[in-house]
Amino acid sequence: MRKTAAVLIIGDEILSGKTKDVNIGYIAEKLTSIGIDMKEARVVSDDYEHIIATLNNLRTKFDYVFTCGGIGPTHDDITSAAIARAFGVDLIEHPEAMLRLTDYYIERQLPLNEARRKMGIIPTGAKLIDNPISTAPGFYLENVFTMAGVPRIMQAMLDFVLPMLQKGTPIKSATLTESAFEGDFAADLTAIAAKYKTLSFGSYPHMIDGKISTSIVIRGDDDLSEAENEIKSMLEKYKR
Amino acid sequence: MRKTAAVLIIGDEILSGKTKDVNIGYIAEKLTSIGIDMKEARVVSDDYEHIIATLNNLRTKFDYVFTCGGIGPTHDDITSAAIARAFGVDLIEHPEAMLRLTDYYIERQLPLNEARRKMGIIPTGAKLIDNPISTAPGFYLENVFTMAGVPRIMQAMLDFVLPMLQKGTPIKSATLTESAFEGDFAADLTAIAAKYKTLSFGSYPHMIDGKISTSIVIRGDDDLSEAENEIKSMLEKYKR
Repeated sequence: MRKTAAVLIIGDEILSGKTKDVNIGYIAEKLTSIGIDMKEARVVSDDYEHIIATLNNLRTKFDYVFTCGGIGPTHDDITSAAIARAFGVDLIEHPEAMLRLTDYYIERQLPLNEARRKMGIIPTGAKLIDNPISTAPGFYLENVFTMAGVPRIMQAMLDFVLPMLQKGTPIKSATLTESAFEGDFAADLTAIAAKYKTLSFGSYPHMIDGKISTSIVIRGDDDLSEAENEIKSMLEKYKR
Repeated sequence: MRKTAAVLIIGDEILSGKTKDVNIGYIAEKLTSIGIDMKEARVVSDDYEHIIATLNNLRTKFDYVFTCGGIGPTHDDITSAAIARAFGVDLIEHPEAMLRLTDYYIERQLPLNEARRKMGIIPTGAKLIDNPISTAPGFYLENVFTMAGVPRIMQAMLDFVLPMLQKGTPIKSATLTESAFEGDFAADLTAIAAKYKTLSFGSYPHMIDGKISTSIVIRGDDDLSEAENEIKSMLEKYKR
């Protein structure tokens, strides 16, 4: 069985539309590539109780949960506190985190004030996720991985996290795209899908310059080549 | 009170990372602009039971729910069936939908086969959402609006839906951006936020060419100008 995962994006700015999320798609692609099944993604606002309830729901349902956002130094960064509360543990100053922050800010001649110290205060029992970009670490506790929201920092943190996860065999996948209409080939596609029961067949129409083309994505653990050939012939037949 | 909303994106292709979602951000921006509060977004796979459970959760918690994806003609389009089931109603062939589909396909000399007819089969009691791009309609039932996943079609459907919603006064918003570090100004920002209790202050660092700048977003129903001036002075003070 492949491990399952969920992503939790935390931040008012995503729900107001001011900032467009790119972390869901990035994490989805990375997890898929190492054979972990992303089953759900959620976006919630900077609302303490909502974060706690959502996290407790996701962490019991999925093998891994990845959170993005809300671990900075400002008053609206409440993710660490919410996660501590979700796990029923206290926040503590993490010695190694504090050491890293001290070194980083001394080197840059910036004060390690209370706001910056806050970034070294994490739930009791949590371990650090390295941040090679701006030092302030993420952390993980049981199956929950808490990362920054800034995409470049999140991506660097994810690189640190990925080797810790239990990988699966990446699901095989083939995509065939043709200027064909779903409504033309749907019955044929249903018949092919019924024949290859262990594979899944997704059909995704696109609009490119007002012209419709469709991608068929075949996914599964078994060999795809036979199904791929059938889909290719089918699309050829219905090409417009 | 502003109305609340949630978005539900349905589709394996988003969770595999193959297709990157752009609908959450688009809908978020539109709803914000008409004074509706988007409170949550979720992405789930083409899993019948998961769609039903998620939809029933969201539609009882929020005033409006917008779904995207899974209403096409192929076997993997199961949203209409899942929504009917969530509401405990049957699917029926909607006469007006069928008329539109018939006209559209006759004009294009395409067969109105079973797959295409499926797009006119919607939950009993649902009303149509116009699709000026490719005709096959979305639908709405109570507080749930079901739209296509293809962004251009979803956007056209949303244009049809927006006038039906109970608008609120759009929340006032001001964004100030400066090459300043959150860790420098966090204490000052906390003090300002404490002073203007009816406003919210979000702090969002960005990385542009490896250089950090931060945007402070002030939001609220009261006049923002005084708080805006204070934030401006604060950012000026900590500019680097």
